[in-house]
Amino acid sequence: MMRHEYRVPVRYYETDQMGIVHHSNYIRYFEIGRSEMMQDAGVPIEKMEEEGVMLPVVAVECRYKLSARMGDTLKIVSMIDKVPMAKMIIKSEIYNQRDELLVTGSVTLGFIDSVTRRPVRCPQALADAIAKRM
Amino acid sequence: MMRHEYRVPVRYYETDQMGIVHHSNYIRYFEIGRSEMMQDAGVPIEKMEEEGVMLPVVAVECRYKLSARMGDTLKIVSMIDKVPMAKMIIKSEIYNQRDELLVTGSVTLGFIDSVTRRPVRCPQALADAIAKRM
Amino acid sequence: MMRHEYRVPVRYYETDQMGIVHHSNYIRYFEIGRSEMMQDAGVPIEKMEEEGVMLPVVAVECRYKLSARMGDTLKIVSMIDKVPMAKMIIKSEIYNQRDELLVTGSVTLGFIDSVTRRPVRCPQALADAIAKRM
Amino acid sequence: MMRHEYRVPVRYYETDQMGIVHHSNYIRYFEIGRSEMMQDAGVPIEKMEEEGVMLPVVAVECRYKLSARMGDTLKIVSMIDKVPMAKMIIKSEIYNQRDELLVTGSVTLGFIDSVTRRPVRCPQALADAIAKRM
Repeated sequence: MMRHEYRVPVRYYETDQMGIVHHSNYIRYFEIGRSEMMQDAGVPIEKMEEEGVMLPVVAVECRYKLSARMGDTLKIVSMIDKVPMAKMIIKSEIYNQRDELLVTGSVTLGFIDSVTRRPVRCPQALADAIAKRM
Repeated sequence: MMRHEYRVPVRYYETDQMGIVHHSNYIRYFEIGRSEMMQDAGVPIEKMEEEGVMLPVVAVECRYKLSARMGDTLKIVSMIDKVPMAKMIIKSEIYNQRDELLVTGSVTLGFIDSVTRRPVRCPQALADAIAKRM
Repeated sequence: MMRHEYRVPVRYYETDQMGIVHHSNYIRYFEIGRSEMMQDAGVPIEKMEEEGVMLPVVAVECRYKLSARMGDTLKIVSMIDKVPMAKMIIKSEIYNQRDELLVTGSVTLGFIDSVTRRPVRCPQALADAIAKRM
Repeated sequence: MMRHEYRVPVRYYETDQMGIVHHSNYIRYFEIGRSEMMQDAGVPIEKMEEEGVMLPVVAVECRYKLSARMGDTLKIVSMIDKVPMAKMIIKSEIYNQRDELLVTGSVTLGFIDSVTRRPVRCPQALADAIAKRM
């Protein structure tokens, strides 16, 4: 399994009138986590786009257990279980600074050609970068 | 089944560099849909909060089939299958102006007391408003 | 003067933990207002982009007088005083449903060629559409 | 003058279909910058709120010179010229990793009592923290 951790502070603009982070922002935290993971693996998402492959999200799921608040620092854990072929599945967990599990989720990405917008296989550079870290 | 439709245009700030609506925004469209549904049913979410009950999201799932783009007008369909007790489950579908199905999803809400932040039952006014529309 | 009104309800995800609409969202309301104004004038922004001209924002200013809250419906007033040449200046005012002035602002847009990303003149179709409505 | 630097990577969800960071996000970067500055000065914004003072934004201005893109790391510089009394003015500059100036701006904050929502003076702890760093 490839596993990656990244920390981000809660931002004021991410809170809502319940006084907690708005639930939609965790989908963005997941993106931050996988984006940083890909960058650390040498295959940043913007590089892949430049090389003609885009990674649209095809499914998201998220379970909310505890809330995050202003002042919290979140630990985003991103995990990949198997080398992607047609799709890439990333599991995510988000913890606060007291190591309480706030949210679990998973995101499925596809691969499409930037020009034709048709599905393609996972680029070899990405598959290799992941395989090496399993 | 309670069913509600609401239309919103895509906003420029909702697009991303793939030239499509960023996937996180559909979670916000779901919120717009259920919020308008509740308002039309006479139980707006801000009224319920004033009366001491908040509705945090406890789970979200979303499947993305086709993309929305600037210039599109989206139809958000929100559906409730059964009168809520401890939780409220809302299924959502989002279509574009050509009636193509873009996204399906479901959101589960809990009910908590605003002061104690402890789980409570679905407020009677909300359960009644839904029951009446089933 | 060209003048345009458009109404939008406040969305839950736009609120913050002060219980009011987060200040950054008014910049987005300004965009909604001018986007709808341009669409009503027959020159939607996405059409201009397709024809090769993009309209990046070069300056924004905003003064906040009163807050908007969940449950409010906002009236976005967008105004253009003179036919654009190198730049387009749009003044904006946002009112709530009690016609209280919440925010005033102004946004300056430039015109650039989508390919070269160099400044160009205001497209004739846009200048004409505005001139006709002055 | 009190001066503070903070670095943030551009996030994918902050880009728009022009392929650059959407202009509204710089208002959020300003908030990140001043929030981190206040935290480093020992007076985090959420602490001030707990003690009964909220800091609503009363004015914002922003000039955009160059665009930020996915892959960029931004340096947010926040500056305070004088110890706040009724208002606090923070000047901001945002640079990319090549130290090119992208954006300049300024944000004016007021101070209000959380309960009465009426204007109050700048809390002494905040004025002292700033005075000490001038």
